[in-house]
Amino acid sequence: MHEMVPIMQKCIDNCLRCYGVCLRTAMSHCLEAGGKLTEPAICRTSAHFMLIGTDHHKHTCRECAEICTQCAADCRRVGDMQACVDACRSCVESCRQMAA
Amino acid sequence: MHEMVPIMQKCIDNCLRCYGVCLRTAMSHCLEAGGKLTEPAICRTSAHFMLIGTDHHKHTCRECAEICTQCAADCRRVGDMQACVDACRSCVESCRQMAA
Amino acid sequence: MHEMVPIMQKCIDNCLRCYGVCLRTAMSHCLEAGGKLTEPAICRTSAHFMLIGTDHHKHTCRECAEICTQCAADCRRVGDMQACVDACRSCVESCRQMAA
Amino acid sequence: MHEMVPIMQKCIDNCLRCYGVCLRTAMSHCLEAGGKLTEPAICRTSAHFMLIGTDHHKHTCRECAEICTQCAADCRRVGDMQACVDACRSCVESCRQMAA
Repeated sequence: MHEMVPIMQKCIDNCLRCYGVCLRTAMSHCLEAGGKLTEPAICRTSAHFMLIGTDHHKHTCRECAEICTQCAADCRRVGDMQACVDACRSCVESCRQMAA
Repeated sequence: MHEMVPIMQKCIDNCLRCYGVCLRTAMSHCLEAGGKLTEPAICRTSAHFMLIGTDHHKHTCRECAEICTQCAADCRRVGDMQACVDACRSCVESCRQMAA
Repeated sequence: MHEMVPIMQKCIDNCLRCYGVCLRTAMSHCLEAGGKLTEPAICRTSAHFMLIGTDHHKHTCRECAEICTQCAADCRRVGDMQACVDACRSCVESCRQMAA
Repeated sequence: MHEMVPIMQKCIDNCLRCYGVCLRTAMSHCLEAGGKLTEPAICRTSAHFMLIGTDHHKHTCRECAEICTQCAADCRRVGDMQACVDACRSCVESCRQMAA
């Protein structure tokens, strides 16, 4: 198996974690509290692109960083979703490093 | 149900069709013929973003148009994949209209 | 490209169409009208399995038929979602033919 | 946010990890070594169903346990894919606990 650059592996982990936390939060607290339905699909897609080894991950990571920045801000505003805020921030940080 | 702009509905249809044709081709002819594994995940993600009604579809559609342009060129080069070339081109045309 | 059995191609089309209609409806009318969030992910997964040519589609198609039967019933109850009811029913019919 | 049963959270983690390891392996060593293309989509779908809180995860988890059992056996046969074998086995164990 080819060696995966550590910061890319970290980014994949952060994207998949963000996808999981955001989706679970969206299905429970977030919608009830008047939040917008967060869109964790981009996190999953970015992880997918890094896993299959295509350079297009640079563009999806850039997009992912933007969307998760917005999501973190929305979650802070709605409140009581610190796990989601934290997951988004780690995802943003990693994705910025991987973006074009 | 909110009205869907007809060119967006067309774009969703073209993206999902491209995803289907490319994935099926990738699993059969394409790999055997020495083609690169095409990546239809972006088509599916673009359709998803338009279906849930987020403006971020503008960025995924732009990315989708780029990737499918490349895919169509690869498929032409490998040969015997006209269905895939056609699906990619329709997808590119629609996605360019929806992109930012 | 290998020949695709026509009823399988029809099933793929019906699954992807059901995924699209249900997701779009869920994001607009359905949630506002007190409906449960439908889960079109299984339709997409069933289509995916048929497209890559694995026999496991028999199990996902069986599951898809069950979930879409329920979804059609929920949509009828909530009302004003005939497009969703119709898409689910076509999907159920196709998936039953493909199930184990 | 509703409390997630710890064995379900563990299962989600194992499914997403298995998806990542299998997909990455499939794109590199596995295909070159004559392995079959593994299908990690079911792991991702099972995680998705548990995350959105639907009881249908019982069926996808059962299916996931079956597919990953097969995948682990294939990977052992091809060789040099211990990470994939391990990820599949953890996934199988968790999914059996969550299956119907």
